[in-house]
Amino acid sequence: MSDAAAPLRPKTVTACVLLIGDEILSGRTRDSNLAYIATHLNRIGVQVREARVIPDVEETIVATLNEVRARYDYVFTTGGIGPTHDDITADAVAKAFGVAITHHPEAVKILGDHYKATGGEFNEARMRMARLPEGASMIDNPLSKAPGFQIGNVFVMAGVPMVMQVMLDSLTGRLEGGATMQSRTVTGQVGEGTIAEKLGQVQARHPDIGIGSYPYYRGKTFGTSIVLRGTDSSALDRAAAEVMALMREFGAEPAMGDPA
Amino acid sequence: MSDAAAPLRPKTVTACVLLIGDEILSGRTRDSNLAYIATHLNRIGVQVREARVIPDVEETIVATLNEVRARYDYVFTTGGIGPTHDDITADAVAKAFGVAITHHPEAVKILGDHYKATGGEFNEARMRMARLPEGASMIDNPLSKAPGFQIGNVFVMAGVPMVMQVMLDSLTGRLEGGATMQSRTVTGQVGEGTIAEKLGQVQARHPDIGIGSYPYYRGKTFGTSIVLRGTDSSALDRAAAEVMALMREFGAEPAMGDPA
Repeated sequence: MSDAAAPLRPKTVTACVLLIGDEILSGRTRDSNLAYIATHLNRIGVQVREARVIPDVEETIVATLNEVRARYDYVFTTGGIGPTHDDITADAVAKAFGVAITHHPEAVKILGDHYKATGGEFNEARMRMARLPEGASMIDNPLSKAPGFQIGNVFVMAGVPMVMQVMLDSLTGRLEGGATMQSRTVTGQVGEGTIAEKLGQVQARHPDIGIGSYPYYRGKTFGTSIVLRGTDSSALDRAAAEVMALMREFGAEPAMGDPA
Repeated sequence: MSDAAAPLRPKTVTACVLLIGDEILSGRTRDSNLAYIATHLNRIGVQVREARVIPDVEETIVATLNEVRARYDYVFTTGGIGPTHDDITADAVAKAFGVAITHHPEAVKILGDHYKATGGEFNEARMRMARLPEGASMIDNPLSKAPGFQIGNVFVMAGVPMVMQVMLDSLTGRLEGGATMQSRTVTGQVGEGTIAEKLGQVQARHPDIGIGSYPYYRGKTFGTSIVLRGTDSSALDRAAAEVMALMREFGAEPAMGDPA
């Protein structure tokens, strides 16, 4: 049998997101980067399998990064690449990879031009933002210029959401995705405990689809959203139809989509 | 020298938060539980040092829980304790502790009374929510009745934010806090790169205080919030005064608090 006869089954590409920053762990800042990154990656066939929030502590960043970069296809970090003393991510990443960190000539030029144009002083602290681990390549930052960087399978981005978002856009074409996860959502005014047993049977009939049950409350009404996720759209449609039939069986009038 | 002469230094009590659920990793749900839990715990002297978002996969929950419960004083989990097939947290926690999981008589009674009062069917799926690992104690849920539980240093709570919040309130008096972290925020219209070098010197003079720098953008204005965190309020006030003086040196008119 030739290779060409093997079934075409797109591979699964996985990622871990590391949110680096004391401000998220203290509760001061509510993170919005994870949901944005996960949604963005999902569209290009990269599945986020784990996320961690860790403090601005070098040994923690080094150990965590070395653990997760071995386990997942890609690692995306946010936070800690600014000009101040608490911005230690670039140094920690260099340490994790066992390489030196040096001023990157192109980054120095971009930042120098930026501060010349805006009248800001290109001082030593701002020069720190042009330091990249040896062997890293820049991730463009059209917004505030200070670049992120890629080294190996690790992508280091800013923590400020709008800067992180333009960096993620800059990665277009640099990430290789696999199977794209699609989803269907079925919502109905029925308690999840009411349909639970039969929903488990739907799950058992569709082992390649992940079925999640999410109760919701809207004032005096309540109900359940069932989210089906998988890579085969017609299989998803069949399973979603079974969930709709199941909800009707218990007196609900289900609809596709999230609760209104 | 007697023990009484030793300096009174409150101990540090640490915690890890595990957010369990595919819906957070897919980007469908933006988590709000971490910031709430971190803020709540901070007030009673428990410092969240790490958080992880992990999928509804038993072996992942077991391995992660056993890793972090050994490393931190407390572990708080959210998600996966409902009636449906994807609610596997209680079973995974029992497995992590190497104990059986059984119907807890008091939980069965609470849920039975609840469904009798509301007219819902107390079926087998809903009975699952009364299953607790052996040796666990209930965490009350005045809102929707199905309890969370504590086993060892692990607190297992619901994922629905308002249910999680009443469970956290139910824990009042059961958690032993240590030193309470306090904070001061100083905000001024100055670039963080401008003050970075001297801010590093303020940090060096106050090694017991954590100083974080957070740039912000508001339309055409921008600036920096400096957050100082520590357990000694007068030391915090002194360091905050130095940060205000530093911002004035660079022409800003700083104020205490977040950007307006």
